[in-house]
Amino acid sequence: MIIHFPVKTPTAKIEEIAKSLEAIVLKDADKFALITGSSVKKLPEEVAKLATESFVFDSDIQLASKKYTSSVREIQIGKTVIGGKSNNTLLIAGPCSVESEEQITQSSELLKELGLTALRAGCFKPRTSPYSFQGMGIDGLKLLDKMRKNYGYTIVTEVRDATQVKDVIDYADVIQIGAKSMYDHGILKACAKTQKPVLIKRGFGTTVQEFIQCAEFVLSGGNPNVILCERGIRTFETKTRFTLDLCSVAWLKEYTNLPVILDPSHAMGYAYGVADLARACTAMGVDGLLIEVHPNPAVAKSDASQQLNHDEFRGLVKSLKPVAKAVGRTIV
Amino acid sequence: MIIHFPVKTPTAKIEEIAKSLEAIVLKDADKFALITGSSVKKLPEEVAKLATESFVFDSDIQLASKKYTSSVREIQIGKTVIGGKSNNTLLIAGPCSVESEEQITQSSELLKELGLTALRAGCFKPRTSPYSFQGMGIDGLKLLDKMRKNYGYTIVTEVRDATQVKDVIDYADVIQIGAKSMYDHGILKACAKTQKPVLIKRGFGTTVQEFIQCAEFVLSGGNPNVILCERGIRTFETKTRFTLDLCSVAWLKEYTNLPVILDPSHAMGYAYGVADLARACTAMGVDGLLIEVHPNPAVAKSDASQQLNHDEFRGLVKSLKPVAKAVGRTIV
Amino acid sequence: MIIHFPVKTPTAKIEEIAKSLEAIVLKDADKFALITGSSVKKLPEEVAKLATESFVFDSDIQLASKKYTSSVREIQIGKTVIGGKSNNTLLIAGPCSVESEEQITQSSELLKELGLTALRAGCFKPRTSPYSFQGMGIDGLKLLDKMRKNYGYTIVTEVRDATQVKDVIDYADVIQIGAKSMYDHGILKACAKTQKPVLIKRGFGTTVQEFIQCAEFVLSGGNPNVILCERGIRTFETKTRFTLDLCSVAWLKEYTNLPVILDPSHAMGYAYGVADLARACTAMGVDGLLIEVHPNPAVAKSDASQQLNHDEFRGLVKSLKPVAKAVGRTIV
Amino acid sequence: MIIHFPVKTPTAKIEEIAKSLEAIVLKDADKFALITGSSVKKLPEEVAKLATESFVFDSDIQLASKKYTSSVREIQIGKTVIGGKSNNTLLIAGPCSVESEEQITQSSELLKELGLTALRAGCFKPRTSPYSFQGMGIDGLKLLDKMRKNYGYTIVTEVRDATQVKDVIDYADVIQIGAKSMYDHGILKACAKTQKPVLIKRGFGTTVQEFIQCAEFVLSGGNPNVILCERGIRTFETKTRFTLDLCSVAWLKEYTNLPVILDPSHAMGYAYGVADLARACTAMGVDGLLIEVHPNPAVAKSDASQQLNHDEFRGLVKSLKPVAKAVGRTIV
Repeated sequence: MIIHFPVKTPTAKIEEIAKSLEAIVLKDADKFALITGSSVKKLPEEVAKLATESFVFDSDIQLASKKYTSSVREIQIGKTVIGGKSNNTLLIAGPCSVESEEQITQSSELLKELGLTALRAGCFKPRTSPYSFQGMGIDGLKLLDKMRKNYGYTIVTEVRDATQVKDVIDYADVIQIGAKSMYDHGILKACAKTQKPVLIKRGFGTTVQEFIQCAEFVLSGGNPNVILCERGIRTFETKTRFTLDLCSVAWLKEYTNLPVILDPSHAMGYAYGVADLARACTAMGVDGLLIEVHPNPAVAKSDASQQLNHDEFRGLVKSLKPVAKAVGRTIV
Repeated sequence: MIIHFPVKTPTAKIEEIAKSLEAIVLKDADKFALITGSSVKKLPEEVAKLATESFVFDSDIQLASKKYTSSVREIQIGKTVIGGKSNNTLLIAGPCSVESEEQITQSSELLKELGLTALRAGCFKPRTSPYSFQGMGIDGLKLLDKMRKNYGYTIVTEVRDATQVKDVIDYADVIQIGAKSMYDHGILKACAKTQKPVLIKRGFGTTVQEFIQCAEFVLSGGNPNVILCERGIRTFETKTRFTLDLCSVAWLKEYTNLPVILDPSHAMGYAYGVADLARACTAMGVDGLLIEVHPNPAVAKSDASQQLNHDEFRGLVKSLKPVAKAVGRTIV
Repeated sequence: MIIHFPVKTPTAKIEEIAKSLEAIVLKDADKFALITGSSVKKLPEEVAKLATESFVFDSDIQLASKKYTSSVREIQIGKTVIGGKSNNTLLIAGPCSVESEEQITQSSELLKELGLTALRAGCFKPRTSPYSFQGMGIDGLKLLDKMRKNYGYTIVTEVRDATQVKDVIDYADVIQIGAKSMYDHGILKACAKTQKPVLIKRGFGTTVQEFIQCAEFVLSGGNPNVILCERGIRTFETKTRFTLDLCSVAWLKEYTNLPVILDPSHAMGYAYGVADLARACTAMGVDGLLIEVHPNPAVAKSDASQQLNHDEFRGLVKSLKPVAKAVGRTIV
Repeated sequence: MIIHFPVKTPTAKIEEIAKSLEAIVLKDADKFALITGSSVKKLPEEVAKLATESFVFDSDIQLASKKYTSSVREIQIGKTVIGGKSNNTLLIAGPCSVESEEQITQSSELLKELGLTALRAGCFKPRTSPYSFQGMGIDGLKLLDKMRKNYGYTIVTEVRDATQVKDVIDYADVIQIGAKSMYDHGILKACAKTQKPVLIKRGFGTTVQEFIQCAEFVLSGGNPNVILCERGIRTFETKTRFTLDLCSVAWLKEYTNLPVILDPSHAMGYAYGVADLARACTAMGVDGLLIEVHPNPAVAKSDASQQLNHDEFRGLVKSLKPVAKAVGRTIV
């Protein structure tokens, strides 16, 4: 349950109520909002008297629910916005990992050529084997910082675990929480304390319910700028790396107020299918795309098979624009 | 392995070779084609001498493989074609089940209004409970026949099991094999003996490999007119009925020569998501869509939650055309 | 809903009620039982007056539910019984396919040596590729018949599709409906018309709910002798062929009145794990096991990797007996 | 590849080789072991000359592989051992969460009554909703410490994320890494630096391959005391909470050298099935069981539905002993 109280209610009173209801307190310029578990369906009379408004929910999807806020949140990403009434589809592109200054500069030049503004690349890689490339770490973050300074880009990069969350929050414009880190309370709580946009990727074994509840950790901790990212779930089918779940995207669009970005590269796992899927995602009318592109995919240190080369990416961008237009959207 | 022999090779010789290789024989105007299991990688020298051409495969996806025929098969559906160089996306629409003459006539009128030509509706319903509506059976087929006569439509209807396969083959223009019947040898073998197009739906627990191998039963039995239909697989996610697997569609387009049709209605299970998914499917550049639409979904005898009403369907058709155009396709 | 009426109620009255409720009618020596869909929760007053008893259900699991019959059905299998108060765990063993008289005789001799009485082997194989061995068909059934005559065994063999269901019903003592044929109405309805035990295997993509509803087709059609068989479901894990779902077996034991048999051979797909799994299944306290064993697995024409050889099987049987005893069961 | 070098090889030489091969270095009393990615299949000649032994692998399952060490590791857990030649099945029991001193004392008394020595309970709960009980945190760890002092128990408790890993390592005897934290590099690396046993639970969306590779992070970081725990995977079946994957357990026993413990409580999600599953697990011949038991499950602050009450647990322990004995094992 979410309960609103006038902003002038004495803080001590709010705290007393919050304690009695085991509720989390959020405050903004207009009101206090108390959030209890969704099993609370009715307020004690003396509390009800003080409240201005209250919202009952079927599940712990509360702050993220369209029942609470019926329109999609507008989120500022660098100089552009997504969500709200923007009809923007933000194309975030770049290599899987920062590998060298030369490589990330080539990626930056490609974005410049195509008029794009959001650069993605990982520095702390959540690899599943200790014997693979683990990312450039803090040196990678510094290279991304340089690209931002040189090109004015919005930097989207991933936090792997709670030990480097502060560094990533400092260096990134959009903090990406990866599919394998999505349940990490250390990360979620740190991200709740900043106001930078947080892009949460759905775990490949995660239900939509749990996915949004992870967003609720950030939202209820005080950061309203959460973006959801579907990147494929693990199913019995193994010809592709994962299975992009567009049915769930339709659900997210119907029932939540969070912008949705799609990552066809990780879902497919193979470059040949990325363009078709990216067009499908665009036609869904989503708020953004994450696409992996590398100057030379064959020698990429991670995810080599799924990264587009520069020419493939140029072709893709060209083909996305009319699809976006057909559904009333603009690729930015 | 597929091995071609000159059409003038004596039949007795072909039969002798087929027996020695445990091969299936197909004959057309130009050649004999012998198909062995894919574990055969090399021909005995005396056979090789007689062959004009041979094809080796990694798996039992052989006749359906792009390695065998590199372009997508063209298939005649009533007065239109799909596949080949057509760039057509065939919109097949209609109610889940034939329920009455009045109902199916209303559906037919809707198609007429929108300039569509392919009517779908089930008569033998593969329900999972004995206590639900099981379909109108042969009476339903007769009503579909009447619609064909009155409106000139192509009729797409489903065979449930081998006991009614002959009736369905007789009455249908496109024989649909449902997701639960896809492995049915009785059906597959009967469909191999006709030349009518066969639309095989992927089982919700079926890998792409097995799916195409079902197609191989029909193809190797002598019917080249097979269409694949992805309609959602069963995953851990339960907020939607199934999970539409567009990654696999990208695979099918890359590796097989069969036209692909998508069924967003069954994948989603809820009307609210069907339009978004249908646009996504269209942007994938597929050969057709199967959409459930009912004059009054609230009283439908099966699949009530996922059928669009007539107004929703009109809106959908209107929105699909520019998406199709954006990817070089035409909705027919 | 299931509603009981006195056996002396006029048949015309029963038929009238059945029609008004869209109910299926079953009759035995003691009563009429009418079965409606589970959405019916209350009877019209004039019907209620005539009924002796009625049962309301949450879902279409009705005749199979412990709410209807609280103890497990006793089913006669040849000279032994399973279910009821028997505490028997029936070990059904034999090769995947009948391949020759010599082979099936060797299997029969092995069973004789070990004091077993239930022989399994397939004649119509539901293969997923047209280029694999499809089974010996009717000739295989005749060989099984010969084994029954020579050794007195109970024959368990599979029906693939509706085209050979009559033959299988004639030749088998227990009719096995395979995982891929489980939804086949043609088979289910034919099996409902016999009184021979029917062993239904769970489809690898089938929920427990749908699985039991398939059993309801047979039960409501008039054959009370249904056995459920869990044989592994398809999951994201590919190191083993399927995933044996013992959690669902715990559910089946808690909520249904049907005997349960487990097939660790198909679940595992590799001989090395079968013995451990068979012991686990036995410790679950189930009514039977299906184990594939072949005189020479390396040359088996189907499922070569998962069949035990004769020595492995001897070791397994020896090890199962103390496990069965530890849970109050007897291997028969 | 794992390559052994004599312990007397100069460290500088080892480091030089390690750098050239991008290898991780482990040293024990007898040797240096260098571990490269598994794609390395052959050594440069000058390295080969210095090596005493080397092992090639198909995948990055290396230190954990039976190809490297053919018998199961022996791991000391408090005063008992598992693995090796012990034939012990360690029964680890206790409530889902520490909730109060009274509650955890009641659990401790139950273990004492039954002669058990390993107490489990969570303090940092990886809940999926911010609106649920999140665990007692450090106060809970102190209560567990008190139980250890008072009863001499081995304490098994969970680390949730990298922010509290040091505390958990300090207070626990066995560090449990939960299913949702399994990929957490911050946790894995910290656990690699201690010699305390680490029990890694398989993520519910995690393949066996990835699961063991997580163990490789700890093993290659210097801690050889890793235990694997299967606790159910997420599948399409929703009647039970998860699906206990015993097929994968058979694989683990065949191909890895790590002890395996099973958690039927989380797999089932409902108390009624836990006993049957625990007996099945025991009959698999595994190294331990994790069972949730609570003085009053109905009021438990987490996982209420799946915890056994004390009487159910007494019955379970009694029934497990003969099953263990039947497979040559002892419950400890």
